[in-house]
Amino acid sequence: MTKPLQVTFLGGDRGRWRVEKVKPVKGETLPHIDRLEIREGGFTPRFPCTWSLRGTTSNLRYTTEAEAKQLGDVQEGLGRRTATCAALIPIRKNEAWWSLAQNERRRIFEESSKHIAIGAEYLPEVSRRLHHARDLGEPFDFLTWFEFAAEHSGAFETMVARLRETPEWSYVDREIDIRLTRSP
Amino acid sequence: MTKPLQVTFLGGDRGRWRVEKVKPVKGETLPHIDRLEIREGGFTPRFPCTWSLRGTTSNLRYTTEAEAKQLGDVQEGLGRRTATCAALIPIRKNEAWWSLAQNERRRIFEESSKHIAIGAEYLPEVSRRLHHARDLGEPFDFLTWFEFAAEHSGAFETMVARLRETPEWSYVDREIDIRLTRSP
Repeated sequence: MTKPLQVTFLGGDRGRWRVEKVKPVKGETLPHIDRLEIREGGFTPRFPCTWSLRGTTSNLRYTTEAEAKQLGDVQEGLGRRTATCAALIPIRKNEAWWSLAQNERRRIFEESSKHIAIGAEYLPEVSRRLHHARDLGEPFDFLTWFEFAAEHSGAFETMVARLRETPEWSYVDREIDIRLTRSP
Repeated sequence: MTKPLQVTFLGGDRGRWRVEKVKPVKGETLPHIDRLEIREGGFTPRFPCTWSLRGTTSNLRYTTEAEAKQLGDVQEGLGRRTATCAALIPIRKNEAWWSLAQNERRRIFEESSKHIAIGAEYLPEVSRRLHHARDLGEPFDFLTWFEFAAEHSGAFETMVARLRETPEWSYVDREIDIRLTRSP
């Protein structure tokens, strides 16, 4: 299914996911929230919330055929019963990144930063969905949603720490790390 | 300037551009209009119109550094005084295209279809701006706007005919070719 899925993340005092922590990694943070609700399929009318962020799934931007096959063979979807932990990580990249040509961004993204390869080491334990937001005029460029079981929280922590040390991350000028849990 | 520019094309009975012809190339056409107006910067409230199409400029998706430099050295911007002819060509690509990985799309786009190379032959006579619409949930994936002087109409016709014969175009499942003129 490649049709873009429009998704709204609604932060406030209601929703299925309980917020454990809102950690500003770089740049301006977002106001604290207690709960997060995710609405899929169209940017529907919002219920009252502290903030909302919109994004859409899209086609692959850097992944090659071979990489896509490798990931597809092992990754798992969202909504697993045991995946009671989640992270929403909105990031924005700077003008220097966006003015690079496609092959330059690919080279930084994978050949030097191993973004796909690092992520692949944490499959199938961590599942993820990437939402693009930049072309929607949103304050962030990407909203990545991750789900994993509590026992894999340590592995997830290591993964995001490794990614943040890559050359690619030097182009990130705003990042917030929101951790969440839900009842099984 | 890489910040996405939100653009709305408003078709109806008013606007700077006079419509000469609305030609359905493939798939469902759009209702005939007499005039077209272009609004830039935010998807502003619409005045009454027959149809409106939204898109945003974005980062380069296939162009390499060398190609971008080559194009940048010769291409001209929109709004030239002598460019009294224009074309708005909305296209949609099929699911087969969008489910391809990045390197497969690049290979079809340039290595086999020479999309960039063909376009480059018509620079600086034809100027263009590409607007992405798929992730906005619009009926088309791309809205390309071209401007050229009347004396280059023949060259423009040849260019679009050549592109429509490429392997890339076999993935296009809807295309409309709207030709316009304005007073000098």
